[in-house]
Parts: sequence; structure tokens; C-alpha cells
Amino acid sequence: MMPRKYAIGVDFGTESGRAVLVDLSNGQEVAEHVTPYPHGVIDESLPGSAIRLEQDWALQHPGDYLEVLRISVPEVLKQSGVNPGDVIGLGIDFTACTMLPVDARGVPLCMQAEWRDNPHAWVKLWKHHAAQDEANRINRIAAERGETFLPRYGGKISSEWMIAKIWQILNEAPEVYEHADLFLEATDWVIAQLTGNLDVRNSCTAGYKAIWHKREGYPDQDFFAALDPRLAHLTSTKLRGQVVPPGTKAGGLKPEMAVLLDLVPGTAVAVGNVDAHAAVPGVGVVTPGKMVMAMGTSICHMLLGTEEKAVEGMCGVVEDGIIPGYFGYEAGQSAVGDIFGWFVEQAVPAYVKEAAEREGIGVHQWLERRAAAYAPGETGLLALDWWNGNRSVLVDTDLTGLMIGYTLQTKPEEVYRALVEATAFGTRKIVEAFHHNGVPVEELYACGGLPQRNRLLMQIYADVTNREIKVAASRQTPALGAAMFGAVAAGSQAGGYDSIVEAARVMGRVREESFKPNPANVAIYDQLYAEYNRLHDEFGRGGNDVMKRLKALKESVVCRES
Amino acid sequence: MMPRKYAIGVDFGTESGRAVLVDLSNGQEVAEHVTPYPHGVIDESLPGSAIRLEQDWALQHPGDYLEVLRISVPEVLKQSGVNPGDVIGLGIDFTACTMLPVDARGVPLCMQAEWRDNPHAWVKLWKHHAAQDEANRINRIAAERGETFLPRYGGKISSEWMIAKIWQILNEAPEVYEHADLFLEATDWVIAQLTGNLDVRNSCTAGYKAIWHKREGYPDQDFFAALDPRLAHLTSTKLRGQVVPPGTKAGGLKPEMAVLLDLVPGTAVAVGNVDAHAAVPGVGVVTPGKMVMAMGTSICHMLLGTEEKAVEGMCGVVEDGIIPGYFGYEAGQSAVGDIFGWFVEQAVPAYVKEAAEREGIGVHQWLERRAAAYAPGETGLLALDWWNGNRSVLVDTDLTGLMIGYTLQTKPEEVYRALVEATAFGTRKIVEAFHHNGVPVEELYACGGLPQRNRLLMQIYADVTNREIKVAASRQTPALGAAMFGAVAAGSQAGGYDSIVEAARVMGRVREESFKPNPANVAIYDQLYAEYNRLHDEFGRGGNDVMKRLKALKESVVCRES
Repeated sequence: MMPRKYAIGVDFGTESGRAVLVDLSNGQEVAEHVTPYPHGVIDESLPGSAIRLEQDWALQHPGDYLEVLRISVPEVLKQSGVNPGDVIGLGIDFTACTMLPVDARGVPLCMQAEWRDNPHAWVKLWKHHAAQDEANRINRIAAERGETFLPRYGGKISSEWMIAKIWQILNEAPEVYEHADLFLEATDWVIAQLTGNLDVRNSCTAGYKAIWHKREGYPDQDFFAALDPRLAHLTSTKLRGQVVPPGTKAGGLKPEMAVLLDLVPGTAVAVGNVDAHAAVPGVGVVTPGKMVMAMGTSICHMLLGTEEKAVEGMCGVVEDGIIPGYFGYEAGQSAVGDIFGWFVEQAVPAYVKEAAEREGIGVHQWLERRAAAYAPGETGLLALDWWNGNRSVLVDTDLTGLMIGYTLQTKPEEVYRALVEATAFGTRKIVEAFHHNGVPVEELYACGGLPQRNRLLMQIYADVTNREIKVAASRQTPALGAAMFGAVAAGSQAGGYDSIVEAARVMGRVREESFKPNPANVAIYDQLYAEYNRLHDEFGRGGNDVMKRLKALKESVVCRES
Repeated sequence: MMPRKYAIGVDFGTESGRAVLVDLSNGQEVAEHVTPYPHGVIDESLPGSAIRLEQDWALQHPGDYLEVLRISVPEVLKQSGVNPGDVIGLGIDFTACTMLPVDARGVPLCMQAEWRDNPHAWVKLWKHHAAQDEANRINRIAAERGETFLPRYGGKISSEWMIAKIWQILNEAPEVYEHADLFLEATDWVIAQLTGNLDVRNSCTAGYKAIWHKREGYPDQDFFAALDPRLAHLTSTKLRGQVVPPGTKAGGLKPEMAVLLDLVPGTAVAVGNVDAHAAVPGVGVVTPGKMVMAMGTSICHMLLGTEEKAVEGMCGVVEDGIIPGYFGYEAGQSAVGDIFGWFVEQAVPAYVKEAAEREGIGVHQWLERRAAAYAPGETGLLALDWWNGNRSVLVDTDLTGLMIGYTLQTKPEEVYRALVEATAFGTRKIVEAFHHNGVPVEELYACGGLPQRNRLLMQIYADVTNREIKVAASRQTPALGAAMFGAVAAGSQAGGYDSIVEAARVMGRVREESFKPNPANVAIYDQLYAEYNRLHDEFGRGGNDVMKRLKALKESVVCRES
């Protein structure tokens, strides 16, 4: 009998990194370990410095990523007792676009004495929002030029993405821009640290965050020159590198890193990846028709297709972006769990908190239990889930939340249920945008924190979308997916897999129990969704732009005061 | 020097009655005393009986009103040390329509052994809501017949009013209907007890609650016959009596009642009155152009005019209904303080409650203080104040509350401020309905609980309506007004007044400080009111009837379950 083989997946989140050691024969997570980033999210001042950051800034320290590797990888080996020689592959996933400038050797500028006091030398975290001006100009110029890439991104390039962030550096710190040999996604930078290969880029971040296209490449020089003549040669210089699909082997583990990680030198390392996207094979999805929802503070919706279609308000479509050989579609809702969190923090009365304490459960759970006693339609409430704007399908950050149907008898659990339903309607809107535009959605797969702890929410999503929902068996689906890509990088000769499809068949796992739509509920939710849709279009498509006017008035009042 | 003269006003509320002894030379309240009704609101079972009441029923015990007189009147005399001979007049005000069936001697049927077990023999309190079917049929038939009285009541006769309540008795207890010699407003019944005069009715309740008109009288026989042939002669039999304006002397205090009340026999007693309406002279308002707002759980808006105009959604217009010689207009908002109460109870988080406790203030006050720090428009929130439907101007109980503009940063004090603003917009809607339809509104006068304790609210109302608001000096304005009418019933010969106008000039009182509109705020609220109006018409006038559809769906779901 062959000895069991293993792979390690490392998930780099916003506050911490997590290593998971996975059994390649069944996808079981044998051990896991979390390392919080020593510097966390840097949003006030630079480490060890009095240099203050402006509002909307969010940086990280690249050394923190190495700390995760140094601590958590040996730890999972130790916990599991697995022989390092049986760990045949390593994969990672990351937040994105999380990017940094490096020199010709791949050393981050912020780790060099002469640059460390310049905020632009540091890692810009995905939620660094200070490049909005640049994003606005990118969108205006691209629209004016009729750039064909715009529809691939739902009509808008985000301020969170690579080009806007690079342009902000050029505008505000041209010396950093000039000195940078490369701008890298952090996920690609970590892979370079592990393998010494600085030339390889993963197609997921290149496609979703840097406007790369498998056949067309990056937007052409003229476009970049139209933004700023100094950017004309950006993609052939500071964004150069070979873009390859997930699962591609970036290289073997460097000897010095092998020592650090207690692994065997030469262990196969896959190219970088993005957290939500790595979760797709993690739940076993490697074919079209199955939408994967990474559900937490927000929802990221991922779907495979066989053709490139224009779908309203999607975040992006990238060939080879998720699973090689398919067009990977991404859409999203900008706030889901965040809305429930706001509600519990700011709108749940003391008596609920006290009752939950008496019952020995959390407030969320108390609300879920009480809300579950209501039938669809019974609260008389309906909401638009725009507490943080609307990502898909309207792509409008100026929209705000709405609740309709309050009475003097309205209870907190009813409002909670209406909020859950509203986010489900938001997901249905996305499902239908794909399904009715040539990218079929037959089933839903859920991973992330919410499905683990909220059965009512899952049933409501099944009823509202009229689709069965399967739930990830793993609690660490992105890390599992990363490990699977590590096993693919290793290949079957080494005891891994030759494709992510094979890996997913064996290792991708959902729970036995799924959430199936209840036909009686589906019928009532069809009625409520029609009402949601009418309000959605009235307030979201220009029928009544009161939300934007209220927001503009608020901003003008706040400005006048300050 | 003449000795000072006094009058007593007795305010009969929902849960208790309150006597106030007033100095006629200046309107000062010398003493006051409250007596809770021994039987309170009877809404579960009849007193001393196993007979259960249906939902929506609300009864009272007429003996409780006599208890108030027996206890509180002697008490204010005792407290004040005033000589009973110097109390020259007595007036009362009451909730309405609060009605009861009596026999030919004026004895309530419920106080007779053979009828006491019949719920329909008891006093139906104003908020008895079980006659909705009858009200619906009254409105349908009146509309079909083109009855001219309908526009005087904003197009709708309420289930709370006299004719619907009488018809319910006829439908459900024809034996009670037959045996009743008269149906009386409780306010008229109490006056009959005090004076022995069973033949006099006050024009306020007759006009606002029983469809009486100074020149046209009650609707004609044909209309009542169209409702039910047995009702054809209702107004000439069981509603018979002479209708006279407030301030008319109903008679002198009966000797046996004088003994009970420690007053002098023959003391002038004014005809009955309604609480909110009695408050109008209580704040000194006896001429057109000044809208009086009785502000508490709801708002009742009262205004005088010189002509009978049709105003959308008013509750009623009655000649001599408030001040003799004028058309008294009434409108209302069905929930105001009730919305803030709901909010504090159901939607204010524990941390606010804890902070208020630490600061040693109430939650309402905490919210008011924090909300006062915001400028108009700064919350980005806007509400429709329909938590209990909309009384004026839409007259629609199926409308519900709406809040727009929520973000993940929205704070409870911001929502609170938006709720206050929404009720102010509701009042502006009413002000404008009158002002633009020939019944001018130049100033506002506020009485009741809210103006006493919420300065922010008063300032917002001034800013939103762009009108100065004067606030009642008295905390017991209806009782003060009742005492003033008592002094008018006594007349100047006895040391009282010959008209309510004279009485109000001397006795009606507002505070020195008033709330004046701030022009900068007025300008912003004009913008917000335009947004309110647009939502008001969209959701209230058929643009999008989603509120009604949600309510109908809710009712169908609840029915299916039960």
C-alpha cells in the first residue's frame, strides 16, 4: 500500500494567515494553525514611525506573510505527525488585490531603509480605498475610448484593483513608482519567496484585478498612455511576467525556505490564488451550472461558463480565472453578514440581549430561532439590502438601505428575518442575471462562515432562489482549495493529481445534508421578489434617486460643518 | 375688592380622571388631583363575570366616572382651601366617541341587573374597534348615495364613532338596542348626572362623532333606512336631544351631587366637551389662523375657520365644534409618540440603555441629546411616519412605516432623529392641506406631553413647518379649557365670563419662550420635505401599493396558519 500523501494550503486573510494540512486521499483536514499578522491592518501610522496615514488607507507588512509560513506550516506538521516527505505540494490563497512594489530582486521597497518611511512603498491591502479618484478617471477614459474590457468588469474598474492602486502611487509618490521594478500581487510575491521564481503570475489576480485577458493580454499601450504618458509601458515593464492558470507549478520549494518551513526542498509549489476563487474546487465545483457563494461579511458569487458573456454588474469574467479551461465569472453583494452585524450592534433592544443571555445563546442565534417561527410574508416587511451600496448588479456605492412595512407591533426578529430575506433577494438578482444571460445556474454551493451557523438563512436562500444549496463540509474551504492546487502542481507521479478536476472529485467535499427549496415558500417568495424587484428598479435605476440625493445632502452638510 | 373666583375642570381620560381647580383671574391651576378608574379599560371580561370579550373590544364602567367626581373634586377643594361658594362653574372634557345606552331615566343599562351580563350594555370606549364592518358599510352606502356629509369627514366615517358603534349594538344585541331609550356620549351622560338635564347634547361630539351639522342636522331618515330599516328613526328617537355649543350652561349642580362633590347646589355646569378640543381655548386660541396640536402618543390638530371648506383627509369640520361662531377643523396623525415609544422598546440597542443609565437620564432624553448634535440632512435618513397607518391626509390604515438611507454606520440617534423629522413632515402635510385650501395656518400652538419634554422635537417642527410654535403653559390644558367653559356657563354676573373669547384672553396661557424657525434649517427641510412628499405620494396614492400588498400577504399567511 502506498503511504498517504498530503498537501498544505495556506490562506492569507485580512488579519491573519492559516495553514491547513490535507489528506490527498479524501480531502480531510488533518491539522490547521492560525498566525495573526504581527502588524495587522496598518491604517493609522507606519510601523515604528510617526508617519500618519490618510483616511481610506489600509496597508500591510510583507514580513507578516512570512511569519505565517514560518510559524503555522511547522505547526501543522507537528500537530499531525505527518512526515514532511509525504507533503508533496503547497498552495496558497490570498486577499486581492493586495499589492506591493518590489525591486529587481523581489525585495519589497518598504523593507529597504531608504523607502520605509514612504507609505507608498508598503503593501496596499485589498481594502485600501484611497485610489477612488484614479478609478473614476480610469472608468471615464475607458468609456470614452470604448475599451472592450469594460463589459468584462460589469462596466466598472474598482478603486481596489491593481491599475488604480499603481496609478495612485505614480501620482502621489512618482519616486516609488520609478524605483519599483515590479508591482506584484502579494499572492505572487509570496510564491516568489517560496520558489525564487519572480517571473510567474497567476491568471486569477491578473484577470480579475489587473485587466488581463487570456487572448488579448492587458489593455494596450494607447489606453495606458491616455491615462498618463508615464504609464504607457506599464504592462511590459512593471507588470511583466508570465500569466499561467491556477494549479500550475511555480517551482520547487527553495532550500532555505524548506528549512524555515520544516518541509523537503523542491516540494511542488502552485502559483498564487485568491481566497474566494480557491474555494470553488474546495467544494468540488469544477464544471458550469454550479454557483459557489463565499458567504461572510459579504458574498462573493463564482460560476463557471463555457463562453464569455456580458452579464450586468458582474465583478469580472476571466478565462482560466478559477478553473483552467473555463470562463470564471464573479459577482458579489457588498454587505451581507455585515448587515446582520450592524443590526445586532445598533438596532437590537436590550431585552433581546438579556433573553439570549438567559437562554445561554448568542443574539444572532436568538434572532434566528425567533425568526424561524415566521412564515414567508408573515412579517409584512421588505428591505433593500443596500446598507453598503450595491455591488452586483447595479455597481453603485451611493445606494443605501431601505426597510418598508414597519408597524407599532414590529419585532426585532421580524426585522432580522426581513434583512436575511433581502440579502437572499439580492443573491437571486445575481443568479438571474447570469441564468438569463447565457450562464446557467442550476445549483448553489455555499462556503464561509454564514452557512456554518445559520440554517434559517440557508433555507431562505434555497426558497428565494428556488435552488438546492449544498454546503461545504470544510470550514476552511479556501485553504482546502489551495492545498488541492498544490497537489495538482505536484502531479500524479508524485502522488498528487494531474488536474484540479481529478483533485476535486476526490477531495472537494460538501455535507450530506443540503437545503432544498420548499415549494410553498418558493411561491410566496416569488411574490415578495416581484415587490423587491420593483423597489430595486425604482430606487436603483433612476426611478427615484432619493438615496443619492440624501447622500449628497448629507455630504454637503458634513462639509459645511468641517 | 371682589373675592377671587374659581372654576373646576375635570378631564376624563382613558385610564383615569383628573380634576383641576383654576383661578379665573389668571388661569393658574391652584390644585389638581387624579383618580384612576377602578375598572380601568375593560377588554378581557366583564367586571365580576366570566363573560369574555372578543378581540378589539374596549369597554368602561360608567360608575368609574362618578368615582372621579366623588374623590377628585373634594380633594382639589381641600388642597386649595378654596371656599366652595367661590367655585362658580364646572366643566368637563372626555375621550370621544365614548358612548353608552341608557334607559328613560338616564340609568346605564349595564348598571341594571337584567342587562349587566350583556357586553353591549356597557360603555364602549373610544378605542373599541369591533365596529369596523359597520363603518365599512356606512362608508360604502354613503358614497353610493352621494351623501354630502362624507367630505366633511375627510371621506370616511370611523369605526370609532357613534353611528358605527350603535349599529354594531343593533346587529349583535338587538334587544339592547330596543331597550335603550338613548345612546349618549359619556361626556353628555356625566353632565346629565351632575345637572339632571338629560336633554342637552354638546355640539363637539355631536358634530365630530355623530355626523350632526348645525344647519342640516343629522343625515336624513333615508340614509339610515338604507343602512338598516330599523335605524330609520334613530336620530329622532335614540339620539334625540338639543345640540348646543360648548360653554352653554347645561344646568345647575343637583343638590345630591353638590353634597357628593362638596360644592354649592346650583353651581353652573357647562355642557360636555372633548379633551383635545377643550385644549384649544386652554392655550388661548379662539380665532382662526392658529393651529393647536395636542401632542402625545398621536397628534390631534385643531384649527378654526370662518367658512366650511373641503380639506383632504381631515377628521371633521364642525360649526361651533370647538369655539362658538367658528368652524372647527380637526385632523390627526395616528402615531407620533407611539412611534418613538416603539423605537425605544424595540429598536434601541443595549449600549444606549446602559449609557443613558450611566448618565442618569432616560433613553428618550439620551437619544434627544445625541440627535440634537446632527444638522438637518446629516443623518442621510428619511422616513414615512406610517407605523400606525396614516390618518390625515390619506385616511388609510393599511399604510406602514418606511425608512430609507440606512448604512453600516447608521446610529440609533440618527434613526430617532429621522423618526422625529418624519412626524414633523406629516404635520407639515396637514398644515399645508389646510393652508392651501382656504383655511390659513399662521402659527402653531402645542400642548400635551411631548412639548413638555422634547425641545429638539419642537424645534424640528418649527423648522419643518416654517412656523413659530407656542407651547401651552399648563400641563393640563384640556382640564384648563374645561374649567374655562365652566366659567362661561356661569357668566360674568357670577364672576365668570360671558364668552370663551373673554375667558381665553385672561386664562389661556402659553409659555414666554416659543420655538422659532431657523432659516438655514428651513431651507434644508424644504428639500427633505420634497423628498418626503414624493415618497408619500408614491406609496400613499397608488404609485406603488406595496405596503397594502405586503399587509394583505401577511394577513393571508396568518389566516392560513390559524
